[in-house]
Amino acid sequence: MRAVVCGESGIEFTSEFARPVLGINQTLLRVRVAGICDTDLQLARGYMGFRGILGHEFVARDDRGRRVTAEINHSCRRCATCLADRSGERPGLARHCPNRTVLGILNQHGAMADWVAVDSRNVHAIPDEIDDRAAVFIEPLAAALRVAEQLGGVEKVDCAVLGAWALEDSGALVTWIGKHPEKLALAESKADTRLVEDARSEGRKYAVVVDATGSKSGFPDALGLVEPRGTIVLKTTVAGRHEIMLSPVVVDEVRVIGSRCGAFEPAIAALRAGRFDVTRLIEAEFRLDEAARAFEAASRPGARKVLLWCD
Amino acid sequence: MRAVVCGESGIEFTSEFARPVLGINQTLLRVRVAGICDTDLQLARGYMGFRGILGHEFVARDDRGRRVTAEINHSCRRCATCLADRSGERPGLARHCPNRTVLGILNQHGAMADWVAVDSRNVHAIPDEIDDRAAVFIEPLAAALRVAEQLGGVEKVDCAVLGAWALEDSGALVTWIGKHPEKLALAESKADTRLVEDARSEGRKYAVVVDATGSKSGFPDALGLVEPRGTIVLKTTVAGRHEIMLSPVVVDEVRVIGSRCGAFEPAIAALRAGRFDVTRLIEAEFRLDEAARAFEAASRPGARKVLLWCD
Repeated sequence: MRAVVCGESGIEFTSEFARPVLGINQTLLRVRVAGICDTDLQLARGYMGFRGILGHEFVARDDRGRRVTAEINHSCRRCATCLADRSGERPGLARHCPNRTVLGILNQHGAMADWVAVDSRNVHAIPDEIDDRAAVFIEPLAAALRVAEQLGGVEKVDCAVLGAWALEDSGALVTWIGKHPEKLALAESKADTRLVEDARSEGRKYAVVVDATGSKSGFPDALGLVEPRGTIVLKTTVAGRHEIMLSPVVVDEVRVIGSRCGAFEPAIAALRAGRFDVTRLIEAEFRLDEAARAFEAASRPGARKVLLWCD
Repeated sequence: MRAVVCGESGIEFTSEFARPVLGINQTLLRVRVAGICDTDLQLARGYMGFRGILGHEFVARDDRGRRVTAEINHSCRRCATCLADRSGERPGLARHCPNRTVLGILNQHGAMADWVAVDSRNVHAIPDEIDDRAAVFIEPLAAALRVAEQLGGVEKVDCAVLGAWALEDSGALVTWIGKHPEKLALAESKADTRLVEDARSEGRKYAVVVDATGSKSGFPDALGLVEPRGTIVLKTTVAGRHEIMLSPVVVDEVRVIGSRCGAFEPAIAALRAGRFDVTRLIEAEFRLDEAARAFEAASRPGARKVLLWCD
């Protein structure tokens, strides 16, 4: 089958990848469209040391022809971490299962291919109201909604969002800060959208700062924006080590919260209700065999979502 | 007067420093004894660029002969930060006043001298039940108690404490981890005291990890101990930048909380009630003019509290 593979020398398209062999509790899905995420770009640069088919944002059809997508963390459902989730004690904790594989990220082939094998229990049907191009955003929207979930109430709280899209439906007073006008122009009208070239010129006035820049400068910039005892939400995973001053975190008693995946149900419900116009975030669309060009487009500074059509 | 000064070439004792001239709302105190804190060692290495008399843990006598100590943050009491504290809306926020000076740390001479000038409103009387050697610990104990305050309830929670003393009276299940047996031997009997040379051999099993190592290895070690969605409390201020991998914070949704100063009242009450035997933490005692030897003793790996007697 055709597939976009992350190898030693970066991204490669092949038409000769073996079709997945199903494991226990797995379902074979025919992929329709997949999105390129900043994490894919990081993986191509060596983050996590991943080797295999990329892709963890996608729309597919199952063997009954239903339109579906799937959560990306395949947990063992047996360890203490998974059981604490299942018991209701710590909802969502199974996403941190120490035995997990992660679709297109960790020890599991992803969806930029003709076919993908996923854990049957991770499959979600896509309601008719959400078309394919919007449904690609279920996974990234779930991750974006996770930020507000972790923060608890942020109604009327001054928040700065660096580099991406978050908190727009949370009731927070959101200021978008970024270097790319074409991205900022996409902020929902209810957000106080501004283009700030040097985040440090803003001063330390935000109770919450979300760093979703995907860049090494995101965390230092966030430290320059957050007020004492304020909160930085880290969404950015950057490959490798980088030089950081941690003393401002201590002196100013800043709280830093790492934020990764979210639950799919609220994201699907939000898209179904038309609460977010996600298709405006699409930068460009390519066929699967144009993967090289697609990744080039997604790597351009300020680029939004790039789609890969797989059938 | 005599003083221990932090200058370009590190620590220096002088007997010819000018006696403080009092500013508005200031009180002159005759210093009896001061403690050397890890922060003082960091300042001597260039942290914060401080130049002046060191010392922010001390016991003194005021002009009425009362035994006193003083909080270290001299806030302006006028800005929005200070007013949010005074209104009761955000207790303790004045410690983050953007216009503050900090005793022996930021734009204000400290207490390793014959005399020290402090904000009169920062002065606390020391009850008779707390002798001078214990009273030196009011400031560091206040900072230690701040950890539990920030965490909220930690009753029966598995906590690891790296390099120092925290959470012992919080009801948490505390494991001490450190490289120095002589320090670990000091842990209260109710703590599960263990000597772990390589923190990473423990595995990621602690809901809370406190890094009070004063060392660059503290944060990476804490990341190796904290469970997914767990909390790292950063007490360590290390001079300069250092290389850090932030991606585990994101992937494991770790919460990092910076922790600095605490309120003096609970620390004074705890010492008065005999809840902590702090004098066991004293490593050595010197006269003020022996400051060079005292700082040498305090810099020894594994060293506990070193006192400087000023009268």
